[in-house]
Amino acid sequence: MSGPLYPKLAVVGCGLIGSSVIHAARAAGVVGEVAVADASVAARSRVVELGYADKVCADPAEAARDADLVVLAVPVLAMGEVAARMAAALKPGATVTDVGSVKAAVAEALTVALPEDVFIVPGHPIAGTEQSGPDAGFAELFQNRWVILTPQAREDDPYLDAVQRLADFWRALGANVDRMDERHHDLVLAVTSHLPHLIAYNIVGTAADLEEVTQAEVMKYSAGGFRDFTRIAASDPTMWRDIFLANKDAVLEILGRFTEDLQALSRAIRWGEGDKLFDLFTRTRAIRRGIIAAGQESPEANFGRDHRGS
Amino acid sequence: MSGPLYPKLAVVGCGLIGSSVIHAARAAGVVGEVAVADASVAARSRVVELGYADKVCADPAEAARDADLVVLAVPVLAMGEVAARMAAALKPGATVTDVGSVKAAVAEALTVALPEDVFIVPGHPIAGTEQSGPDAGFAELFQNRWVILTPQAREDDPYLDAVQRLADFWRALGANVDRMDERHHDLVLAVTSHLPHLIAYNIVGTAADLEEVTQAEVMKYSAGGFRDFTRIAASDPTMWRDIFLANKDAVLEILGRFTEDLQALSRAIRWGEGDKLFDLFTRTRAIRRGIIAAGQESPEANFGRDHRGS
Repeated sequence: MSGPLYPKLAVVGCGLIGSSVIHAARAAGVVGEVAVADASVAARSRVVELGYADKVCADPAEAARDADLVVLAVPVLAMGEVAARMAAALKPGATVTDVGSVKAAVAEALTVALPEDVFIVPGHPIAGTEQSGPDAGFAELFQNRWVILTPQAREDDPYLDAVQRLADFWRALGANVDRMDERHHDLVLAVTSHLPHLIAYNIVGTAADLEEVTQAEVMKYSAGGFRDFTRIAASDPTMWRDIFLANKDAVLEILGRFTEDLQALSRAIRWGEGDKLFDLFTRTRAIRRGIIAAGQESPEANFGRDHRGS
Repeated sequence: MSGPLYPKLAVVGCGLIGSSVIHAARAAGVVGEVAVADASVAARSRVVELGYADKVCADPAEAARDADLVVLAVPVLAMGEVAARMAAALKPGATVTDVGSVKAAVAEALTVALPEDVFIVPGHPIAGTEQSGPDAGFAELFQNRWVILTPQAREDDPYLDAVQRLADFWRALGANVDRMDERHHDLVLAVTSHLPHLIAYNIVGTAADLEEVTQAEVMKYSAGGFRDFTRIAASDPTMWRDIFLANKDAVLEILGRFTEDLQALSRAIRWGEGDKLFDLFTRTRAIRRGIIAAGQESPEANFGRDHRGS
């Protein structure tokens, strides 16, 4: 009816998520002009070649100037510095959000760095692939995925309007939107994302370091289950280093639970307690059925990755 | 040129692997008659309905009578009993193989149970999905996957011919064939299959038991990585109970390495050692590239499971 939700969008950090936001927002018609800032020369020239931004620059302040929505899509420990660099250039009343996988630490960093006359609405789209960089994005990434917003404890109408507009933006990109306390977000994501990545990185490292089994054997016979873990263990190293450091307490807490359970399982194997194993293995099937029913997973065998003739 | 490799095939246990062997062998034209034995009434009537066997019975001896190749596709701790039940019915010179994920324990059980005038050639196709039962099989399951044979320490020509024929059979089904010492097989598979399943079962159990995070939250936000683990944690409980019990020593050995590495990683997080995290996360990427190069994994983002428009 009355033009795009945000006449000017600025995306700082044009990796998988940043570039997907641009593709999806353009496809939905919810933004006008798009400016991109990225610290990497290679990434900038690639964005220019791909042509999906109206303006590409090194300085986040230059991209953010006059923007109605600024999306910070850099590693979580870089959020504060990027925010500080662009603080003076922001238009009063602009909305600043982020896509970081940790929310308490980022919310704190943004609040410290940014002026009071912008609306800070931290956010996290639970979507991604193992690929990185400005080529990795695609418009459908957020379809039917969840975006969690962790708004500040403010009840004034302009702020609530800004939160509502950002929720509308994500819905236009195909996502479902939830609001959550930032501490609870960090605990939930420690379970559903951070611990799985930690475990995956660890098992791939363990397998690579064995003397009795060669790396060639690990690769050849990986279809027995191991290859599944290598997908998320191929995720961006800088991004994940920052996540573990920024969400240390929740990750260590959940890791402690995991390790305790693993020791009980190890003991059941050592003592031949088949019933305990069988009970656990039966319970875990139900969780997958629930995830498929919730529309968050493919019902296809093997994720549908192998060609099936029939 | 001269008829099928095996005029009569008997498959004992008609689950995912057993039914896939039948579909693939029929598609390749390497078998004539096919007999199936399964202990489950429901599975037997389903096989009759699906119509892919010439004969369906409860008694393994009845299915195995006159068979040229008998494929045992039951849980590994059931192999010995099934072999004993059919021992007297086997034709001299028949080949008996299995598809179990543990080889030392199964080889021992078959050697004890079976007569000396049959050829025992234990085997293991490194292929599967998280689905089970007589409906789960499909002809393409073994395409480009590896089958490991662990022949007995015999050098007589009739035995070597039997091993060669079985290798030809698997190649006709689309697989690559390796031969390996059974102890080494069990160690390699502890790394590439058994530990990954154990870890996956464990993390799904841990997530299900938390008080602070609900199961509904775990399911909704599972696209952050967790959902990948639920696939293999949905595998057949009886099959996997048996695997851990039958390969206890190798599993506990590899689990010990994994736990040690995980403690080092935990410590690096606690002390904020970002460089250690970054180094590991960089190394693990290379393993996935190797698996894709080895043709054992889809190069598609997210295993290709999410729809990508472009």
